[in-house]
Amino acid sequence: MVSTELLILIDLTVVIVIAKVIEEIVVRLHQPPILGDLLAGIIIGPTVLGLVTVTHSIEVIGWLGIVILIFLAGLETDIEAAKKYGIDSLVVALGGVLATFILAFIISYIFSYSFMTCLFIAAILSPTSVSVTSTTLLELGVIKSRVGKIIMSAAFIDDVIAMVLFALVTSLAYYGEIRHESLIQIMAGLVIVFGIFFVLYKHADRLLNKIIIGSHLADTPFTHLMIIGLLMAIASAYFGLSPLVGAYLAGLAISHAKKSSRIMHFFEVLVQLISPFFFVYAGILLDPWGVASKINTSSGFAIVSVLLAGVIGKVAGCGLVARLRGMSIRESIAVGVGMMPRAGVDLVIAVVGLSLGVLTMELYLSALILIYTTSLTTPLLLKKFLT
Amino acid sequence: MVSTELLILIDLTVVIVIAKVIEEIVVRLHQPPILGDLLAGIIIGPTVLGLVTVTHSIEVIGWLGIVILIFLAGLETDIEAAKKYGIDSLVVALGGVLATFILAFIISYIFSYSFMTCLFIAAILSPTSVSVTSTTLLELGVIKSRVGKIIMSAAFIDDVIAMVLFALVTSLAYYGEIRHESLIQIMAGLVIVFGIFFVLYKHADRLLNKIIIGSHLADTPFTHLMIIGLLMAIASAYFGLSPLVGAYLAGLAISHAKKSSRIMHFFEVLVQLISPFFFVYAGILLDPWGVASKINTSSGFAIVSVLLAGVIGKVAGCGLVARLRGMSIRESIAVGVGMMPRAGVDLVIAVVGLSLGVLTMELYLSALILIYTTSLTTPLLLKKFLT
Repeated sequence: MVSTELLILIDLTVVIVIAKVIEEIVVRLHQPPILGDLLAGIIIGPTVLGLVTVTHSIEVIGWLGIVILIFLAGLETDIEAAKKYGIDSLVVALGGVLATFILAFIISYIFSYSFMTCLFIAAILSPTSVSVTSTTLLELGVIKSRVGKIIMSAAFIDDVIAMVLFALVTSLAYYGEIRHESLIQIMAGLVIVFGIFFVLYKHADRLLNKIIIGSHLADTPFTHLMIIGLLMAIASAYFGLSPLVGAYLAGLAISHAKKSSRIMHFFEVLVQLISPFFFVYAGILLDPWGVASKINTSSGFAIVSVLLAGVIGKVAGCGLVARLRGMSIRESIAVGVGMMPRAGVDLVIAVVGLSLGVLTMELYLSALILIYTTSLTTPLLLKKFLT
Repeated sequence: MVSTELLILIDLTVVIVIAKVIEEIVVRLHQPPILGDLLAGIIIGPTVLGLVTVTHSIEVIGWLGIVILIFLAGLETDIEAAKKYGIDSLVVALGGVLATFILAFIISYIFSYSFMTCLFIAAILSPTSVSVTSTTLLELGVIKSRVGKIIMSAAFIDDVIAMVLFALVTSLAYYGEIRHESLIQIMAGLVIVFGIFFVLYKHADRLLNKIIIGSHLADTPFTHLMIIGLLMAIASAYFGLSPLVGAYLAGLAISHAKKSSRIMHFFEVLVQLISPFFFVYAGILLDPWGVASKINTSSGFAIVSVLLAGVIGKVAGCGLVARLRGMSIRESIAVGVGMMPRAGVDLVIAVVGLSLGVLTMELYLSALILIYTTSLTTPLLLKKFLT
């Protein structure tokens, strides 16, 4: 092994070791491991220690990790569970996404960011990631209550909406400007990719059975499922959408097929092994000191406003809809607070925005602050409103 | 995701899809999947279709794959089983390795290759890889016979000897020339790394328990085991040995700890998922057409002689020792033939030799021909001598 490969090995080992050490601490504080990975990146990156800058290999493995991660996020989705709670969850999710999207868009527009940047900010703030909420609901023993069930399945619907939003904004950003033709191309791409999704969704059970019965390989059907995700990611890119959209839809399409616990366990462990590379990468990307020198009252105000838009949009949007669906004020606030945390698709959109140059570093900083503040305050607030 | 990352994704998808399709065919022909991967690389590489050249990303993932693969090879070793068969297996393994090493070294020296190249050829030809043998022994129902048991545990001892050989020759090649100081440095490195190995080996059970009890993470102890492998690989490189040596020893040190079937299953699937990247890479590296134009009677003769040395060394070396241990002539030949196949560490040494410039393309071609011919003929010959 020549020295470049050795350097790559060292890079990757540093990333995974530090990520897992900090994950271990973060998990004991009842926070999702993702926050530990992100923190690990912030600590080893230019923000704190400056040990590691983004090398090509961290980038490659980080991106590969996120494709697999997003595919597995789709694969682990429980569509049937989400279907059961129906209209309540759907409107709560839609309320939160719409309120946040519109509020974030307007506020960033006021701060005179470009149209594309406004779109990205709005898309970053819209998704929810409820892992910290679900932990708290479990602790409080109310995960099976009406509030608990609504939050958990709204979060799933939220994920799907977020991926569509993601598909739209990244595709727009790829084409560089919003023109008639690019919009038509994106729409055509969406129709084709969703078409493939529905075909796959309809035949998922039969396909999985065919693979399991037909293949003589020891890694059946694990590698086969991964290949479906990779192919769909490439197809999605071919039709002008982000490969991540295809990866997610591939996972979602197969998610309802009867999978053994053996299959799910393998993928759960794999996610934990791979995802740190992306989230550490996201943390390393942060460089607040470059921002600090250029910061002025206006941009500081913008950071805080975007942050508030992210919180108010979810709490008010989801809470109001919950109240309209006949829940008590306390319950409605709990639903809004429960839908507040981020640390999933939002981060992926933020990283893509940063790498495309659409998002400035101060807005990226703002997104990371939102992730930490919502994740830290949600458990405390939920306990206050649910006990 | 910007276009470089998309290209990487396409590269990797092409590699894994073609590898798995050809693996599927090869496995139905009772050949080990590795031969399918290698063939996939030969087909898509410059040898046949010329679709793919070695890109940086295939190289990175290939090398990462081989580190993990070698670590897992160590982890999956059944030391206790090998211990049981004792002296018979040990002398058979030693006989085969010594005979092949000496014969290969002498022959390549006659063809006036440099001292370092001769060392590499000898090291490439010395290891055995018995997956095709074990399949045949299973089919014939003689895997529990004396011949079967001796071959299976001799193959394990062979693996360990091969890794030591590998450590020695690659380290010598890194230092460029054989001098008094470099030999001392290598010896010191070996002593330290084997020292770490013995400490780890002694405490493996306790360490694994501590990890399982102590960690709050969902991917316990999978990621933790991987980290041990990665750290040992880096330590090994730090002390002037190949990182692969450390990875193998780390796996071997933990192999005897009580692992659940859940743990082993995860790693078995992971190996199948990752290893194609290395073996396809090894196949792509082959470029026989460059050789063909420069080939002359002498180099053609060298290719054939090296090939014969690889076959005769094993059959005669192992067979003779088996005969001396009191086995019948038929049984002795069967043992020799059973130890003949390659397709493991030998390929790793060959790839390292090629990338260091120590091995010429014609010798690399010779090594690949040896892998295929021994793998294809061994089952037929074993059936002839064992039934």
